[in-house]
Amino acid sequence: MFLHTKQLAYKVRVDKPNPVFAKHLQQAIGGIEGEIRVCLQYLMQGWNCRGPERYKDMLLNTGTEEIGHIEMLATAVALNLEGAESKLQEDLAEANPTVAAVLGGQDPRHVISAGLGAMATDANGVPFNGSWIIDTGNIGANMHANVAAEGGGRVLATRLYEMTDDPGMKDMLAFLIARDTMHQNQWMAVLEEFKDMGMPAPMDFPQELENQDHNYEFIVHSDGEVPGDARWTSGPSVDSHGTFSVRKAEAWGEVPKLAPAEARPELHSTVEMAEGQRFVRKAKDMLTP
Amino acid sequence: MFLHTKQLAYKVRVDKPNPVFAKHLQQAIGGIEGEIRVCLQYLMQGWNCRGPERYKDMLLNTGTEEIGHIEMLATAVALNLEGAESKLQEDLAEANPTVAAVLGGQDPRHVISAGLGAMATDANGVPFNGSWIIDTGNIGANMHANVAAEGGGRVLATRLYEMTDDPGMKDMLAFLIARDTMHQNQWMAVLEEFKDMGMPAPMDFPQELENQDHNYEFIVHSDGEVPGDARWTSGPSVDSHGTFSVRKAEAWGEVPKLAPAEARPELHSTVEMAEGQRFVRKAKDMLTP
Amino acid sequence: MFLHTKQLAYKVRVDKPNPVFAKHLQQAIGGIEGEIRVCLQYLMQGWNCRGPERYKDMLLNTGTEEIGHIEMLATAVALNLEGAESKLQEDLAEANPTVAAVLGGQDPRHVISAGLGAMATDANGVPFNGSWIIDTGNIGANMHANVAAEGGGRVLATRLYEMTDDPGMKDMLAFLIARDTMHQNQWMAVLEEFKDMGMPAPMDFPQELENQDHNYEFIVHSDGEVPGDARWTSGPSVDSHGTFSVRKAEAWGEVPKLAPAEARPELHSTVEMAEGQRFVRKAKDMLTP
Amino acid sequence: MFLHTKQLAYKVRVDKPNPVFAKHLQQAIGGIEGEIRVCLQYLMQGWNCRGPERYKDMLLNTGTEEIGHIEMLATAVALNLEGAESKLQEDLAEANPTVAAVLGGQDPRHVISAGLGAMATDANGVPFNGSWIIDTGNIGANMHANVAAEGGGRVLATRLYEMTDDPGMKDMLAFLIARDTMHQNQWMAVLEEFKDMGMPAPMDFPQELENQDHNYEFIVHSDGEVPGDARWTSGPSVDSHGTFSVRKAEAWGEVPKLAPAEARPELHSTVEMAEGQRFVRKAKDMLTP
Amino acid sequence: MFLHTKQLAYKVRVDKPNPVFAKHLQQAIGGIEGEIRVCLQYLMQGWNCRGPERYKDMLLNTGTEEIGHIEMLATAVALNLEGAESKLQEDLAEANPTVAAVLGGQDPRHVISAGLGAMATDANGVPFNGSWIIDTGNIGANMHANVAAEGGGRVLATRLYEMTDDPGMKDMLAFLIARDTMHQNQWMAVLEEFKDMGMPAPMDFPQELENQDHNYEFIVHSDGEVPGDARWTSGPSVDSHGTFSVRKAEAWGEVPKLAPAEARPELHSTVEMAEGQRFVRKAKDMLTP
Amino acid sequence: MFLHTKQLAYKVRVDKPNPVFAKHLQQAIGGIEGEIRVCLQYLMQGWNCRGPERYKDMLLNTGTEEIGHIEMLATAVALNLEGAESKLQEDLAEANPTVAAVLGGQDPRHVISAGLGAMATDANGVPFNGSWIIDTGNIGANMHANVAAEGGGRVLATRLYEMTDDPGMKDMLAFLIARDTMHQNQWMAVLEEFKDMGMPAPMDFPQELENQDHNYEFIVHSDGEVPGDARWTSGPSVDSHGTFSVRKAEAWGEVPKLAPAEARPELHSTVEMAEGQRFVRKAKDMLTP
Repeated sequence: MFLHTKQLAYKVRVDKPNPVFAKHLQQAIGGIEGEIRVCLQYLMQGWNCRGPERYKDMLLNTGTEEIGHIEMLATAVALNLEGAESKLQEDLAEANPTVAAVLGGQDPRHVISAGLGAMATDANGVPFNGSWIIDTGNIGANMHANVAAEGGGRVLATRLYEMTDDPGMKDMLAFLIARDTMHQNQWMAVLEEFKDMGMPAPMDFPQELENQDHNYEFIVHSDGEVPGDARWTSGPSVDSHGTFSVRKAEAWGEVPKLAPAEARPELHSTVEMAEGQRFVRKAKDMLTP
Repeated sequence: MFLHTKQLAYKVRVDKPNPVFAKHLQQAIGGIEGEIRVCLQYLMQGWNCRGPERYKDMLLNTGTEEIGHIEMLATAVALNLEGAESKLQEDLAEANPTVAAVLGGQDPRHVISAGLGAMATDANGVPFNGSWIIDTGNIGANMHANVAAEGGGRVLATRLYEMTDDPGMKDMLAFLIARDTMHQNQWMAVLEEFKDMGMPAPMDFPQELENQDHNYEFIVHSDGEVPGDARWTSGPSVDSHGTFSVRKAEAWGEVPKLAPAEARPELHSTVEMAEGQRFVRKAKDMLTP
Repeated sequence: MFLHTKQLAYKVRVDKPNPVFAKHLQQAIGGIEGEIRVCLQYLMQGWNCRGPERYKDMLLNTGTEEIGHIEMLATAVALNLEGAESKLQEDLAEANPTVAAVLGGQDPRHVISAGLGAMATDANGVPFNGSWIIDTGNIGANMHANVAAEGGGRVLATRLYEMTDDPGMKDMLAFLIARDTMHQNQWMAVLEEFKDMGMPAPMDFPQELENQDHNYEFIVHSDGEVPGDARWTSGPSVDSHGTFSVRKAEAWGEVPKLAPAEARPELHSTVEMAEGQRFVRKAKDMLTP
Repeated sequence: MFLHTKQLAYKVRVDKPNPVFAKHLQQAIGGIEGEIRVCLQYLMQGWNCRGPERYKDMLLNTGTEEIGHIEMLATAVALNLEGAESKLQEDLAEANPTVAAVLGGQDPRHVISAGLGAMATDANGVPFNGSWIIDTGNIGANMHANVAAEGGGRVLATRLYEMTDDPGMKDMLAFLIARDTMHQNQWMAVLEEFKDMGMPAPMDFPQELENQDHNYEFIVHSDGEVPGDARWTSGPSVDSHGTFSVRKAEAWGEVPKLAPAEARPELHSTVEMAEGQRFVRKAKDMLTP
Repeated sequence: MFLHTKQLAYKVRVDKPNPVFAKHLQQAIGGIEGEIRVCLQYLMQGWNCRGPERYKDMLLNTGTEEIGHIEMLATAVALNLEGAESKLQEDLAEANPTVAAVLGGQDPRHVISAGLGAMATDANGVPFNGSWIIDTGNIGANMHANVAAEGGGRVLATRLYEMTDDPGMKDMLAFLIARDTMHQNQWMAVLEEFKDMGMPAPMDFPQELENQDHNYEFIVHSDGEVPGDARWTSGPSVDSHGTFSVRKAEAWGEVPKLAPAEARPELHSTVEMAEGQRFVRKAKDMLTP
Repeated sequence: MFLHTKQLAYKVRVDKPNPVFAKHLQQAIGGIEGEIRVCLQYLMQGWNCRGPERYKDMLLNTGTEEIGHIEMLATAVALNLEGAESKLQEDLAEANPTVAAVLGGQDPRHVISAGLGAMATDANGVPFNGSWIIDTGNIGANMHANVAAEGGGRVLATRLYEMTDDPGMKDMLAFLIARDTMHQNQWMAVLEEFKDMGMPAPMDFPQELENQDHNYEFIVHSDGEVPGDARWTSGPSVDSHGTFSVRKAEAWGEVPKLAPAEARPELHSTVEMAEGQRFVRKAKDMLTP
């Protein structure tokens, strides 16, 4: 169960409202790098977690924190939108290129659909998508997904930080960047509790069942030079279960052979040849020989 | 530029075609854990990569490999579908529950839309979505995203491996699992070439600008017990730039204050109160005082 | 800011795990009638609300409650999935139509993608979509959207209630149905605080600017009989600003007239006629007369 | 069956073509508040309606009307696009900020994909989505959904009305606003024909089966002040079946308890601990004791 | 403007309701091969058409016809769903594999979301998507898109025809198949009115501006044998503007060269190398030399 | 299996980077007319093709070629983005309308999400969607889908060509336009190998089973004039199996009759009438007579 306090998790202040910046902030709410995604991802992973309890609890703690970050960002969007022009004069371009330019950079739905409020969309107005919520059911794979999500989130937040001169926005983003730092470290710390960083996920699939010829081999499919001294081309593998090697791509399989269309007339895969000679008979003919 | 050889990257053989398994295999083609996603993700990261060249090349090598994995899986789906019944007798349930049961477990579009071919969808027929292609433009964050993608992919592949008794399918999946082992190790190896595993991504944002009070702090928002000895609650942070600590959540912000609806009559946010006393005036009234 | 307690808002108990029912429950999590939708909808409306404060507070109260409902349902899905068969024998249909039948009715991704956990999808595996979060910025229109969301939700919950004989599930659903009853009443109660139920939303657009000939007229476009005594065909309008009437559809507009393709050669809209006589000149010809 | 007359349902005239306004108008075609949505929603509800006939007929009448509104808006978009610049000079910004500004505010796909025609998308180019078509199969819930759809639509239309000075566009929008007024009233009128406004939908689920402790209770999850005199905190419920009350949130459930990962080794949920002591055994070990 | 008559365009009769067939029919309503798509595609092309008038009229005629086809199919789905079991007994599989099997093959949302009505989705419950509405603004390209849509639609309809033994459904599908025959022929007939079948679309781009070395050349990227006598490898091109030839793929471009990450420190693309030697300086260092 | 060479298929050079043009180019990567779509469409059709081998090979050749086109366009986007301003000064509009105007026209995610790289989206940032990959399993229908895809692609490419003055971009687009010319001709050439252009697809459904009254009849649903001399109103049909004729639309079906809601109380479709007289009994009443 969840409770709410009306005070925000951290200060949100906008000194000079900027609807263009509001549009950019949307990426941090409803984008794939955004807070709705990490919030639902950590909560889902926590709710579905079948142990150990310490990880379940940790996920629920941080998932709950993220709801508060959505709240902060939604507030930041609403405050930035207070600078929006909601009138579009027909002749706006000629009359006032400056206003027009700002209009060009803002999300029209912030005005016409939402009446100056945040939306569950990204910076282009593309809706949040539940497919982004990753829970594999494997703790190791999940933690890697979480590190990745926070990495993308912090890259986004630093770019937003540098795009604005608004002291309030910079302060808020400095807080969110700090939390992304912690969260990257936190999920990485869980991985450090696991043998070999939980790799290869899932750890409990018997590796002797996987193909032993190609499981630590860098296969070359492109003609760029392959560095001999790279961490991934020689020496022990990161999971310490094998040794890296390099091999040029070969086709170990054969040319695939599907059942011919003629064998399945009910699928209507085929055509008659133009010159009168059919390369397949009509379905009906085949059914009534 | 790309070239193609008709031989498959690895053997694909189906001994007992199973259209239900074909449906499950679709997750490995068009699902978020699937091969279209990693293929386009590595290629996009490679094409967009602004150096160093060794990483660009590595990404293009492996991205090219993955196109061949889509090809293998599409072939596997087509072969498994050769077991599909494409006739649905009206009375099929009463007459033959076995056939009906299989029909229930297979994707109807494999028959009615695709005529026994693979599709660019997941195991539920949900189309592949380009939003899954992650390229942050930051090599560290990208590598974490790639480890995560391969972790999810290998978890999926091991479950598919154990779902089938078909020797050909087991052999193909053992190969794909092996490649997922390598790819997890490979992206992790790149991270090992970076200081502190490329963390916190992006590494070049000056950390003194982020909020120094909360960047290595586990903030507790739930009432589960917090383990004192966890890797993420005390000791040096994983990136070695700070020290983990624990703090109970507090609301450091204030109650947010948006401009009242009355200030923006053109947004039409408001209503009249039922009892005759308006809590806001009509927009028109405000415009013509 | 939000806090979490590990106890659930209400009891969730599953006596006989049923993975088919787990699939159906997904509609109440990630479907358009589901809890993720109402949760984010009420929170977004609350965060964006520009007053009066009493409505903002109410929205945040109920939005917070709904997070706990997602948690309950995710738990219910995970518990129901404990009845899932995760092995799919190749010959499963012949050997055991009963198992096969259940497999046909369950979501394969519950096993292969999520490892027996809930997902952010609907009962067909279609992901939650942020476009469903309605916040028009107008309180009246929002309240109608909320009543509608709860209506759909309660219809769904009653059908789920009747589909199961599991006492735990019936008890949980009886609670959720009760809350949907309250929430329908609650949003409707807000509407009763408004003059004329907040209609027509937005109330502050001067109705004398809308077309006065057709604003209370039922226009007949189909040949079904129109009842003279219906509430919507005669008598005062619901908003009491007009009188209902009935009129047969007429085309008050003209045949539309777009600028011909010839006028915009750069759009390449056109073709040459087969008989040698062009009906439009080539773009190049037009540019170089 | 449907028939078409080439005359438009109402006049569509554009005096000063404005491609930026064309982009905004798209929201009224392919957005969630748009005409494709209400058209298909009313038609689907009508086609699926199992009685009484008067409601089926009414839905088909108005659904048919809405096709004509899509037609009007598509025409309006095409006419507004006649003001679009389709050449983008490389140095356009330096040379002509005014043109550039307009370009920034318009949808590039109106030129490059559609050749100056309307699209089935919203104002951000996000495609229309069939998930928006609500038909619950319950007339009461459907009518609330229809009121909500018209509320959102009219809010949108009034904002578009105020954004333009074009007399033709203002006239067309005044007509559409009038029809939204009627349609809001019309669906509301149907609800008035029902006992208690069709609430709680569905009306025929026996309320004694729902949880009687919490079905008319406002549960407080946030720390804002709860008004004692609000319509939703005391007095008879809107459906007149209960009495509103207020209660502070409590967790009536228990801490959830899922089957531990160890019990389902085939799911590969787990990891090995780094310090050598496994907290779960490997799947293979469990299978071969 | 549109009008509606309650009689269906053609008879829709279901003798033995079959909810599994209802699910399959959904593909013909809301799938990419379905009637909502062609309906909106032809209407949009008609509304956007800038001449000649005869094509605009033809598109509107047939687009209007297709609304009636959606109506027929929605009716067919509703009638087939009358065979649906809406109770799911917990022990249904054990008790009655036949019922269970049917349940496995039907769309659960037909019962739980729609109450036995059609939906705007495909056979897997994936919603209709507005991106499928093709209108390029070029009549030739549009006609090819229309032929393609009808081709996919007729393939689907024939498969549905053969899946059912219900005489009513076979009669309805025989009508729809006949209309698809006409529509394929009809759009093809328009193409025959154009020179060279409107190819290459757009016809009015001066072909001397396209690359003359590669515009009629089949470039070989795969190692399969290339037939010398194929229509596409030698002889005059179909548009009669060139001569087909064959060439093995070569890379006519160079290795691409992007600006290095170091040049754009504000993008935070980079990482520090693990061994202490940075391969790029930190962004901050670069800004303050 | 696939191999890659780092040289591009054709030269990609950008003389004056233009981030607005980069946004427009995205349509040719991730839009429905774009290269990801045709690439996956041809490869999928090739992998699924059940003969004849010559068509399978041809599809794989051209599908492989298209991967190289994605590569070229991604490179072009990255090079054009090198002109992007990544700083957004708070007061940017006032200070510098030119910069602001460009910002308005570019995709913000190119900077904030991708760090100056291409994305798998269209020109509005809408993600690529796997539903666009058409493979009907019928060669004739597939070829028409391929002609349509290339038609749309070439129309797009010509518009992009004319939007830019950059000689490098013009040269690259002239190459892509040439390839679209070839590919349109190539798929059309395959159709010429078929009898009657593979029409009506599927050719092997016995036409005597389709409705013989309406299969070559243009049915008039709109009041525009129908030209007597059009190719599609009289004379032999294009497939030469019939003769075109014209008929005014009639409703050959009856008013549809669904089972009344009362018959299925478990669906909760119904409501009570306001005046006390129920038009349907409550579900519970019906169950306990």
